[in-house]
Amino acid sequence: MRKIRMGMVGGGQGAFIGAVHRMAALLDGHIELVCGAFSSNPEKSKASGKAWYLPDNRVYDSYEEMITQEKQLPEGERMDFVAIVTPNHLHFPPAKLALENGFHVVCDKPLAFTVAEARELVALVKKTELIFALTHNYTGYPLVKQAREMVKTGKIGKIRKVVVEYPQGWLATNLEASGQKQAGWRTDPSRSGASGCMGDIGTHAENLAEYITGLKIKELCADLSTLVEGRKLDDDGNVLLRFDNGARGVLYASQISVGDENNLRIRVYGETGGLEWFQAEPNTLLVKHLDKPIELYRTGQGHLSAQAAAHTRIPSGHPEGYLEAFANIYRNFAKCVQARLAGEEPEEIYQDFPTVEDGLRGMLFIETLIKSTNSSEKWVKMEE
Amino acid sequence: MRKIRMGMVGGGQGAFIGAVHRMAALLDGHIELVCGAFSSNPEKSKASGKAWYLPDNRVYDSYEEMITQEKQLPEGERMDFVAIVTPNHLHFPPAKLALENGFHVVCDKPLAFTVAEARELVALVKKTELIFALTHNYTGYPLVKQAREMVKTGKIGKIRKVVVEYPQGWLATNLEASGQKQAGWRTDPSRSGASGCMGDIGTHAENLAEYITGLKIKELCADLSTLVEGRKLDDDGNVLLRFDNGARGVLYASQISVGDENNLRIRVYGETGGLEWFQAEPNTLLVKHLDKPIELYRTGQGHLSAQAAAHTRIPSGHPEGYLEAFANIYRNFAKCVQARLAGEEPEEIYQDFPTVEDGLRGMLFIETLIKSTNSSEKWVKMEE
Amino acid sequence: MRKIRMGMVGGGQGAFIGAVHRMAALLDGHIELVCGAFSSNPEKSKASGKAWYLPDNRVYDSYEEMITQEKQLPEGERMDFVAIVTPNHLHFPPAKLALENGFHVVCDKPLAFTVAEARELVALVKKTELIFALTHNYTGYPLVKQAREMVKTGKIGKIRKVVVEYPQGWLATNLEASGQKQAGWRTDPSRSGASGCMGDIGTHAENLAEYITGLKIKELCADLSTLVEGRKLDDDGNVLLRFDNGARGVLYASQISVGDENNLRIRVYGETGGLEWFQAEPNTLLVKHLDKPIELYRTGQGHLSAQAAAHTRIPSGHPEGYLEAFANIYRNFAKCVQARLAGEEPEEIYQDFPTVEDGLRGMLFIETLIKSTNSSEKWVKMEE
Amino acid sequence: MRKIRMGMVGGGQGAFIGAVHRMAALLDGHIELVCGAFSSNPEKSKASGKAWYLPDNRVYDSYEEMITQEKQLPEGERMDFVAIVTPNHLHFPPAKLALENGFHVVCDKPLAFTVAEARELVALVKKTELIFALTHNYTGYPLVKQAREMVKTGKIGKIRKVVVEYPQGWLATNLEASGQKQAGWRTDPSRSGASGCMGDIGTHAENLAEYITGLKIKELCADLSTLVEGRKLDDDGNVLLRFDNGARGVLYASQISVGDENNLRIRVYGETGGLEWFQAEPNTLLVKHLDKPIELYRTGQGHLSAQAAAHTRIPSGHPEGYLEAFANIYRNFAKCVQARLAGEEPEEIYQDFPTVEDGLRGMLFIETLIKSTNSSEKWVKMEE
Repeated sequence: MRKIRMGMVGGGQGAFIGAVHRMAALLDGHIELVCGAFSSNPEKSKASGKAWYLPDNRVYDSYEEMITQEKQLPEGERMDFVAIVTPNHLHFPPAKLALENGFHVVCDKPLAFTVAEARELVALVKKTELIFALTHNYTGYPLVKQAREMVKTGKIGKIRKVVVEYPQGWLATNLEASGQKQAGWRTDPSRSGASGCMGDIGTHAENLAEYITGLKIKELCADLSTLVEGRKLDDDGNVLLRFDNGARGVLYASQISVGDENNLRIRVYGETGGLEWFQAEPNTLLVKHLDKPIELYRTGQGHLSAQAAAHTRIPSGHPEGYLEAFANIYRNFAKCVQARLAGEEPEEIYQDFPTVEDGLRGMLFIETLIKSTNSSEKWVKMEE
Repeated sequence: MRKIRMGMVGGGQGAFIGAVHRMAALLDGHIELVCGAFSSNPEKSKASGKAWYLPDNRVYDSYEEMITQEKQLPEGERMDFVAIVTPNHLHFPPAKLALENGFHVVCDKPLAFTVAEARELVALVKKTELIFALTHNYTGYPLVKQAREMVKTGKIGKIRKVVVEYPQGWLATNLEASGQKQAGWRTDPSRSGASGCMGDIGTHAENLAEYITGLKIKELCADLSTLVEGRKLDDDGNVLLRFDNGARGVLYASQISVGDENNLRIRVYGETGGLEWFQAEPNTLLVKHLDKPIELYRTGQGHLSAQAAAHTRIPSGHPEGYLEAFANIYRNFAKCVQARLAGEEPEEIYQDFPTVEDGLRGMLFIETLIKSTNSSEKWVKMEE
Repeated sequence: MRKIRMGMVGGGQGAFIGAVHRMAALLDGHIELVCGAFSSNPEKSKASGKAWYLPDNRVYDSYEEMITQEKQLPEGERMDFVAIVTPNHLHFPPAKLALENGFHVVCDKPLAFTVAEARELVALVKKTELIFALTHNYTGYPLVKQAREMVKTGKIGKIRKVVVEYPQGWLATNLEASGQKQAGWRTDPSRSGASGCMGDIGTHAENLAEYITGLKIKELCADLSTLVEGRKLDDDGNVLLRFDNGARGVLYASQISVGDENNLRIRVYGETGGLEWFQAEPNTLLVKHLDKPIELYRTGQGHLSAQAAAHTRIPSGHPEGYLEAFANIYRNFAKCVQARLAGEEPEEIYQDFPTVEDGLRGMLFIETLIKSTNSSEKWVKMEE
Repeated sequence: MRKIRMGMVGGGQGAFIGAVHRMAALLDGHIELVCGAFSSNPEKSKASGKAWYLPDNRVYDSYEEMITQEKQLPEGERMDFVAIVTPNHLHFPPAKLALENGFHVVCDKPLAFTVAEARELVALVKKTELIFALTHNYTGYPLVKQAREMVKTGKIGKIRKVVVEYPQGWLATNLEASGQKQAGWRTDPSRSGASGCMGDIGTHAENLAEYITGLKIKELCADLSTLVEGRKLDDDGNVLLRFDNGARGVLYASQISVGDENNLRIRVYGETGGLEWFQAEPNTLLVKHLDKPIELYRTGQGHLSAQAAAHTRIPSGHPEGYLEAFANIYRNFAKCVQARLAGEEPEEIYQDFPTVEDGLRGMLFIETLIKSTNSSEKWVKMEE
């Protein structure tokens, strides 16, 4: 078995999410970075490649060039997959081209710019049978996996209610007017898509809720707002949810919640128990019972499920964080690619990462939110 | 100046909220319990009066008898006010009779059984000029008052968003079927009113949000549900809010949230700051800023507002709780009655307790929630 | 049965601990304040009595006068007990006089100024068979009682280690130089006694540790310090402990720990479990296990011990605080006095409050700390 | 500039700390693993090398073989440094040999088995001028660096008191009797050294306290105990400290604290402020003031010091953990080696990792603890 080779699109020096992907990919030692088209600016791309110790001839001016050139290298030298870490409007083109040229893909969320693009990628993955991971990274946390296992094995009974929230405060002022890069593209409809806050973080909340509960949102009622004057996209949104099993839900996301960081929190209530997990302190899962004290499940403890244990690197008491959760996606992806190379079925524990179908659901969620916000009807169904 | 004399309606031995009212009234030494009609069962009423050291002749068989008889006693011996701690459907009749006979009133929430009754009490208080306090007790916490002061003095700028939630878990099973008394009347439409969960605790959330922000809910979109089979009233409800200044909001209340106690939490976000307060740990107020670390304001600290300080009994570090907050309502009420007896205007710090008008808003809120739940329109306006 | 009558020594208007005792006494309705010698300044004493609605003839100029005069009143009118809330050097004289004249006593801690005085009071209580409660109030918290029950019934096995700490920050500067009254007497050897910080709060830590574990400190090694220049008494102290069963311990108290309020925390570790309780959030008890998740026991929950339940006034979710814990001492004391009046044995649940013997142990603890601090030997035994 | 090449001694498959070192080394992409002697069992070493994608000829049977063989490879191919992750008694021999052969070293703590060995390594590093990092990893956390900066720049005034504690519970039973490997060597004097608990984790506490405060422990009074029957080394220890500036301290470490994970917590109090940091929630630093609310400093926020920022990889709200802190040591070490290769002075921000001198202090600390435990004198001075 050999290390899996990554080519990166976007993520030049100074980029936040590109650095996250690189560290997540490298952490476990199963992946090496072999090439990249790190920026639309060729000089910046070169400088970035140099900073990461790549030879000049593996640093490309564009993703098209990278895909074309790498394809001509011999197996075992050329990249095995493309990691796409560009702004939202530039997810679809390289993803499509990579798939069409036989490369597996890791793509940042949201999957695409429109539902139509998302459906096209779903079809393409189906057709090519390539491996596609979407980095809804919060599902990578061990205790999120523990929560999912507990729901699946009936530990809290039939789900009745889900509350999921993701408040941030970093866009509480008109930061984009200051030239801050992240704020710039994330509030720009031409680069971010039809939704700002909901596309950026609301979809994480939606994905987390569906991942843990195994339920699907059936219909919703949304109130998306732009609360900072002059902004073009929503920076806050509140949503009532109804799930396919009849459970009720509340989902909200916000980027104007002054002083909040990434306060993603989910609470799931079933007939016989409840679960609560908070991303800011991700190594604790509250498990609630009808007639017993609340229990604190902690990352790495011996009594956790096999699936949670398989996504923990260190014994309990050594806090794991965002990068480790992110790296769980890359590790599982790499293990699936290695299995593919070996002509084997990957172990089941590794077949656990967000897929292109999750990406489509995210796009449908955004579409439904906007439809609902513009509607005077109370409930709008979410397409499948 | 003398102690103020309380007569109690309801709250016989074993009753939860009656005991709370008695302790809250006694704590500061300004009030004494002088009489009561503690139960519709005369023997239970007698036994209760005895347990609280009342002479037999001041323990009555009914509130009508109490009000009639006490009225005939000389001033300074007869009760000064009536405290009403009966189930919801029995708030209006004694409140009305007390006011009509010249007694001040402290009434548990909700104010009445219907909006019409509530309006009648508002009119009666206006006409009689008697003092009427409604025990929306959560507004009695010192740090809730601090939060209100900070909003009022512009510390967090114009309010943009409010999130208020009140999950409980005690009705997650069909407890009323077991004969548990509290569960019995609170889930019974003939004693509890048009709403279960929302009437019981959703109104506390509504009152807290309006109290802290000084805003009024203008319209809302509600999804009230009955999630425990066989129950007649809502036991869970999720609501989108719009306030009169344009701020957005989320309010939810639940009695099926397994493992949650009285997890009333409010988060208020303005243009320049945020506030967060959690009833389970009521001595901390999180104050959030655009460019500074979050600050932990604590009950009793020297840098709090005068109004917060005036509702704190002990220096910081000595946790104050639910009873002290409740007692703040009684203390303020008693001070206003003493001022009335002295023919003076009460100090402004004491003119701070929930009123009959707050009670009317609570009833309107319930009415609007039910209207919205039964409507296919997204937004329903809340009457004034 | 009738209410028990309290006469108070000290605690005039503006006094911190006097107000606490009054509220704690009144909360449950079993005690009434009937007289007092509230201040060595007769005018202040009068004004204080008036503020608390006492008739002038029951407000005395001195405790001697109060005890003498009250003794001449008929039973049922005269006070039943004396509450002593003066600075430390004035605990012994009124306590002694009260006992000698047949009055029960509630005394603030420390019991006395010297070990000799403490032994005299122990003897006097034994001789008179009067009821004597010392307000080591932290043992009044329901979850402290739960912890004690759990140790007693073997839930955590044989105790191996105890860590108890009580850091405060209010004396981090030379506050006494500013004329602040509390700081003044608490740092003055002539009024506070041989120790400052340890006498004031270290004894609470010692009492809590012995109360919960049922163990006794056998020997100790102390490092008491005065860290604020110019101060005469210790304001910080660190102590190694050895208990009579061989368990090890750490105890520290501090009044120079900037930013800490009353951060009394205790952790007890046995062979099979652990307990952790923190006074700043007193409604949670962490229960730790060898092979299970940590459990959060919460005040008022149904699964707590009978003794914890008997010291809780409201269902879970309604935070109880310092005053309620304090009031548990007064309630139990009052119930024992009522039983005495009725010629009955008090119920066992009420025979649970700190006694004159606890006070003696506190004095011995202080004495041993000072001996150890001044010794070059490692271990100093604590007398019995 | 090129990646730095690591050879590893110890840390074969299944080893806890070896895996930590590998992930920490790889995370930032500046280091590659090129060879190893992963186990004293050659087959296990081979299998481990294979799992980490090493060619067979770079996997050695012993550290002696590795160092000898690698030395003969050309620069740019041979390893640049040795990472030593063996049990304690096997730190010194490979460290010494590596230094003598011109390789830089990263060594797990404790530095050596005896003070004499430690002094020899100090001398050898001095003589060879090679770069030596000791993985007292807790000093790698961004907020620990923030704390150190705040002390250094006088934000809390002159230090008066330090409380540092490190309770664990994993050795509360006689785990070593079950054959558990970690428990086996850590409780065995022939592999672990003169102290068990204190050598393993007490030294982390000591190192953290001296790192943050910039003070040195001058003398101490220790009570080390073996609380689990049949164990040979201490599993619990409580220590009074005095620092070189006169500050007082308490340090304790325990491995029998049932239910505790790695609850390393430090509190530092100065004349004008206080700091509190807890390893289990490492992204929050409590900053305490004389007259202001406590502030919550959070990893990644804009207002932190440059040195904290330089050790943070992702913006605030993305929890960083144990591995990232560990990786900060490796990143800084790698940057210093790169500078050495380039003949340059490393940037100052990178010259921040625990050194061989820190390792010597750890060994002296252990020695002093044991001396004190066996002494009847109260204070024992710590050598330099």
